[in-house]
Amino acid sequence: MNRPSGRGNDQLRAIRITRNFTKHAEGSVLVEFGDTRVICTVSVEQGVPRFLKGQGQGWLTAEYGMLPRATGDRNQREASRGKQGGRTLEIQRLIGRSLRAALDMSKLGEYTLYVDCDVIQADGGTRTASITGAMVALVDALRLMKKRGGLKGGDPLKQMIAAVSVGMYQGEAVLDLDYPEDSAAETDLNVVMTSNGGFIEVQGTAEGEPFQPEQLNAMLALAHKGMQELFEAQRLALAD
Amino acid sequence: MNRPSGRGNDQLRAIRITRNFTKHAEGSVLVEFGDTRVICTVSVEQGVPRFLKGQGQGWLTAEYGMLPRATGDRNQREASRGKQGGRTLEIQRLIGRSLRAALDMSKLGEYTLYVDCDVIQADGGTRTASITGAMVALVDALRLMKKRGGLKGGDPLKQMIAAVSVGMYQGEAVLDLDYPEDSAAETDLNVVMTSNGGFIEVQGTAEGEPFQPEQLNAMLALAHKGMQELFEAQRLALAD
Amino acid sequence: MNRPSGRGNDQLRAIRITRNFTKHAEGSVLVEFGDTRVICTVSVEQGVPRFLKGQGQGWLTAEYGMLPRATGDRNQREASRGKQGGRTLEIQRLIGRSLRAALDMSKLGEYTLYVDCDVIQADGGTRTASITGAMVALVDALRLMKKRGGLKGGDPLKQMIAAVSVGMYQGEAVLDLDYPEDSAAETDLNVVMTSNGGFIEVQGTAEGEPFQPEQLNAMLALAHKGMQELFEAQRLALAD
Amino acid sequence: MNRPSGRGNDQLRAIRITRNFTKHAEGSVLVEFGDTRVICTVSVEQGVPRFLKGQGQGWLTAEYGMLPRATGDRNQREASRGKQGGRTLEIQRLIGRSLRAALDMSKLGEYTLYVDCDVIQADGGTRTASITGAMVALVDALRLMKKRGGLKGGDPLKQMIAAVSVGMYQGEAVLDLDYPEDSAAETDLNVVMTSNGGFIEVQGTAEGEPFQPEQLNAMLALAHKGMQELFEAQRLALAD
Amino acid sequence: MNRPSGRGNDQLRAIRITRNFTKHAEGSVLVEFGDTRVICTVSVEQGVPRFLKGQGQGWLTAEYGMLPRATGDRNQREASRGKQGGRTLEIQRLIGRSLRAALDMSKLGEYTLYVDCDVIQADGGTRTASITGAMVALVDALRLMKKRGGLKGGDPLKQMIAAVSVGMYQGEAVLDLDYPEDSAAETDLNVVMTSNGGFIEVQGTAEGEPFQPEQLNAMLALAHKGMQELFEAQRLALAD
Amino acid sequence: MNRPSGRGNDQLRAIRITRNFTKHAEGSVLVEFGDTRVICTVSVEQGVPRFLKGQGQGWLTAEYGMLPRATGDRNQREASRGKQGGRTLEIQRLIGRSLRAALDMSKLGEYTLYVDCDVIQADGGTRTASITGAMVALVDALRLMKKRGGLKGGDPLKQMIAAVSVGMYQGEAVLDLDYPEDSAAETDLNVVMTSNGGFIEVQGTAEGEPFQPEQLNAMLALAHKGMQELFEAQRLALAD
Repeated sequence: MNRPSGRGNDQLRAIRITRNFTKHAEGSVLVEFGDTRVICTVSVEQGVPRFLKGQGQGWLTAEYGMLPRATGDRNQREASRGKQGGRTLEIQRLIGRSLRAALDMSKLGEYTLYVDCDVIQADGGTRTASITGAMVALVDALRLMKKRGGLKGGDPLKQMIAAVSVGMYQGEAVLDLDYPEDSAAETDLNVVMTSNGGFIEVQGTAEGEPFQPEQLNAMLALAHKGMQELFEAQRLALAD
Repeated sequence: MNRPSGRGNDQLRAIRITRNFTKHAEGSVLVEFGDTRVICTVSVEQGVPRFLKGQGQGWLTAEYGMLPRATGDRNQREASRGKQGGRTLEIQRLIGRSLRAALDMSKLGEYTLYVDCDVIQADGGTRTASITGAMVALVDALRLMKKRGGLKGGDPLKQMIAAVSVGMYQGEAVLDLDYPEDSAAETDLNVVMTSNGGFIEVQGTAEGEPFQPEQLNAMLALAHKGMQELFEAQRLALAD
Repeated sequence: MNRPSGRGNDQLRAIRITRNFTKHAEGSVLVEFGDTRVICTVSVEQGVPRFLKGQGQGWLTAEYGMLPRATGDRNQREASRGKQGGRTLEIQRLIGRSLRAALDMSKLGEYTLYVDCDVIQADGGTRTASITGAMVALVDALRLMKKRGGLKGGDPLKQMIAAVSVGMYQGEAVLDLDYPEDSAAETDLNVVMTSNGGFIEVQGTAEGEPFQPEQLNAMLALAHKGMQELFEAQRLALAD
Repeated sequence: MNRPSGRGNDQLRAIRITRNFTKHAEGSVLVEFGDTRVICTVSVEQGVPRFLKGQGQGWLTAEYGMLPRATGDRNQREASRGKQGGRTLEIQRLIGRSLRAALDMSKLGEYTLYVDCDVIQADGGTRTASITGAMVALVDALRLMKKRGGLKGGDPLKQMIAAVSVGMYQGEAVLDLDYPEDSAAETDLNVVMTSNGGFIEVQGTAEGEPFQPEQLNAMLALAHKGMQELFEAQRLALAD
Repeated sequence: MNRPSGRGNDQLRAIRITRNFTKHAEGSVLVEFGDTRVICTVSVEQGVPRFLKGQGQGWLTAEYGMLPRATGDRNQREASRGKQGGRTLEIQRLIGRSLRAALDMSKLGEYTLYVDCDVIQADGGTRTASITGAMVALVDALRLMKKRGGLKGGDPLKQMIAAVSVGMYQGEAVLDLDYPEDSAAETDLNVVMTSNGGFIEVQGTAEGEPFQPEQLNAMLALAHKGMQELFEAQRLALAD
Repeated sequence: MNRPSGRGNDQLRAIRITRNFTKHAEGSVLVEFGDTRVICTVSVEQGVPRFLKGQGQGWLTAEYGMLPRATGDRNQREASRGKQGGRTLEIQRLIGRSLRAALDMSKLGEYTLYVDCDVIQADGGTRTASITGAMVALVDALRLMKKRGGLKGGDPLKQMIAAVSVGMYQGEAVLDLDYPEDSAAETDLNVVMTSNGGFIEVQGTAEGEPFQPEQLNAMLALAHKGMQELFEAQRLALAD
């Protein structure tokens, strides 16, 4: 066992999902994967983007940000730089695609759901924590819409979604990398899955050595194992 | 007594100051004025802006932001809009000026302190909560600098600073306006003071009717009263 | 008497208000507070911003700029930098709020008044000169609207507005600071008032030492005195 | 004679050149071609752009702007739009190229001259007025540099430069078009010349019908005639 | 004969016009003036800009770009810099004005034609090659519109347009400057003409010495000669 | 067999790699995957980004763009929009990471290699064509550096890299999707590999239904097969 945190290779960090973390949003969750902490809100607005107008269906879009000192060194605030960086855009596109897979847009009606994931403390895995936490906030927002009489076309929720990172660290496949692992890993692989075991996204990058097919399979197996625990954590949080 | 919250006219909301709220920053505070919640971090970096180079003194600068859904309706994320709005710039300039008044820059040495105030939930008074909370984070950052052997020129802390809003609401002077009051007040006045009772900033705006000199005096008296409690709250937080 | 200009502490600079300074705008004024010279125009356009549509009321908005060499050192042109600075935004927000206080928007009808204040020579007090001069241009624009048959809901002008700076300079309260005073003042206080003696804006900043309540009162008394002369200067200009 | 202003086809508008129009700049001129009024300043700064460093020569660069209500309808302020338009960039590039032709950069030394041309009232011909007026401000700035002991390499002024527009209006060649002519002209031709009769820039555009070689010659002859008067106006202004 | 390429003073480079260079655009041409290679596409879209709505006429607008390494040294990509430079804007405005002169907009109907000229290899004369090549792509786009039944108001094509550069190089007038000539020329003159010999644009710039009227005439005569060959090259390309 | 193009499921499109496509860049390739055509250049510049200074190693960075009419409908030019979109940034980050995996940066020396991939015609798979083509341009640039005596630390080329897309289309795994397939595929998976069979990047996205582990394996097997042909195409191109 060689992980800096002392965790087993197939062990997630402590997962905490706190609902109703802020009061204004239709769904609001604080998600924690160990020391990684992300505020996820879902806001419901009437109307859809232009390319969808008049089709009777809804839309979901996501934005991602980090507080400047969420990280070990302070990052320049993107709002004052005047643009979002490539990493930010890439992550928010991933969050949006992943959560859209949870929904049947034709049942949502002409509403847009804005998902905002803001990292207040980063320790690796911010995108996977964001997806996993925002999924819970999304369920809360849908429940509220229903309660207010908004979802007349039936329940738009098709399936639960969660995400986790896996990687090759010092030659071994490990689950849910924290920052010290992430910055030294040979391969970093983010996996987004449905609760039925299907893949929504698989994004693997060799940081140093190329990875081999059997390593890919080992990492995907770990992801599959961690995913069961994440779906359980979502279920428990929503059952409160 | 006509305040929506049922508070007395000279009554602050519940004030909570939580130190070490996040782990990376040299100073990190969650400040709460009732339902207004702001994360204030202070980051210490070597070097100073160009206009100060080679003068042997330090600098402090502040940035302010709100999560998109900190408010009742979602605001567009400034990072994706590509610029900070006028209100944001105005507030962060105020925070920076206010906290610079706490310091003797010549004793700080060639360091820049970055103050980041990020509102995670807004209910009126975000700028005054930011200043009051960031002051505590600033003390923590200075203590850490000292501990690390950084402050060789003596203690740069000259005085404590706090801020509070007062206003005319339904014809009466009230202390520490929350959002329902703020949006209906005739006058809104933000006051930044030192613990010795001097003014650093006084910014009053008539939203409807002009305010009269005697109303100004009544509001300033309330601010003075509230300020004592804020300095006490800072003192208690720092004593933990 | 210690003012660099030799003025008495309660003495304004020479105030000049030249109407019809340029030919295209509905109101166009050159205002001079000593060597500070600002072109103020008011442009009338049909329609209102989206948030006011269909409410039968008007709007007024202001923009502020300085020619690059209005100052002792050349400033980078904001148009070529690609954004307006925080100081610019702060000032134009102040001008807009101040002049909106002069109007009853429901009588204006669905028109937007654009106030443009462009400093061609700066010597301290550009924002207060801007407000005082733009007020005259605003009256001219309203007169023209009326002449053209545009103001059917009655006169939207509620009250005249003027502005002046006061400050603590070498320990004494002084009126209408010029640049040498402004850059050395301990406190700078901008005051916007109505002709009935009510306050619209009070914005005081301690640049060095905090200011005390009795100093605030002394400065406000000076502002009150200067204001009478500014309202008289506006009245005379409009009487021509 | 068919010009809206009643001028003869070869007649300039009234030309006025007011030196020392503002007090801070090394050269500052208000130039008027009839109702077209432009403030031209020249600012002297030590240092040169990176591509010229260490070559012992100077540089001149120009910027151009219009106040939002310099024109019949208000234009959006470029600083608030966040960028300078194509027309602005084109004109300021022309002004810069034209004035650089007046100078021997190797005699200027490592200084950068910033030329700012800001139109406060537009009535056609703003770019030609800008060049003609800025040339005078440039001479003033050079005189001041010399007086301060700055020009040790000899006089960098090689030749005077002026500019005028000509065009085809209702089938006839006319000199110095005002706005009503400019907006209806078949061809608009801007000419920049030296006092020896050489061309620095010739920029002709057919707005409607193509123009023929003989029309080009007729327009250039008018430009030549007007140029003599402009050089005389510059000479008189500089002789005061 | 002193041209670096060994060409005669009145000799064009090899001109090649390849139609249907890419498959999606309504008109798509690769134009080559020697080593200068530009892809010109014309895209047809329904609708017109706001200022033309409801007038029953069409519009044409142009954009120009260079691949970062079209030139000897790599230029920063304008998309990543976040803005188009002044040279780019100037050229695309020229291309747009020139090609609009080819059309009768009232016969085009409410369509907008987007002309895109992208330089994949630059060796001088990119703007003149762009205009000459885009003219052919424009004819192709109009033919396609007609074939699809789109041009019911008659043929909007009024006349063919072409462009060429001329200049003074080592004291002699030369035709169609390549990069080594262009960067050393005393004068650079771009000429846009109609096939009937009228001028659409004449833009001459003295880079070093001013140019004299007789030099202007010599250059224009060369342009006229080259233009015949360019119109012939267009004609042949369109006859295939 | 159900592919719109009639290809077999494991069949690549026609692959063409044309070296020395433009003359200025150190490496310049036109790569074609069927109708997808991309110009890939590699530019060599001295110096490295700030974060690498003084470490004796080199860097490679990539930018990606599309001509506005490379696609069926015209896209707004990113340079005129003022920013690169999320898709562009994502692709250029992928290209950069992929090609950096080909190099030993410590042997490159303090040079930066700029890879520019500009799509002139798009028909699906532009990112995989870009990587495959840019790899060849990179080899050419390294050869030229060596020839000029630049690579004294030994050959920085560690391994060849290529990329291909695979996907699930109408329930079957297919290789190298063209646009009609890409826009209708259930899953799209981009694979970047080394010539030894290791993975550099695996990026799979379910557009509709989630994909299952066995489908992932089927797609990866196809990718592996296609990759052999791409490495062979690179080898042949470089052997010319």
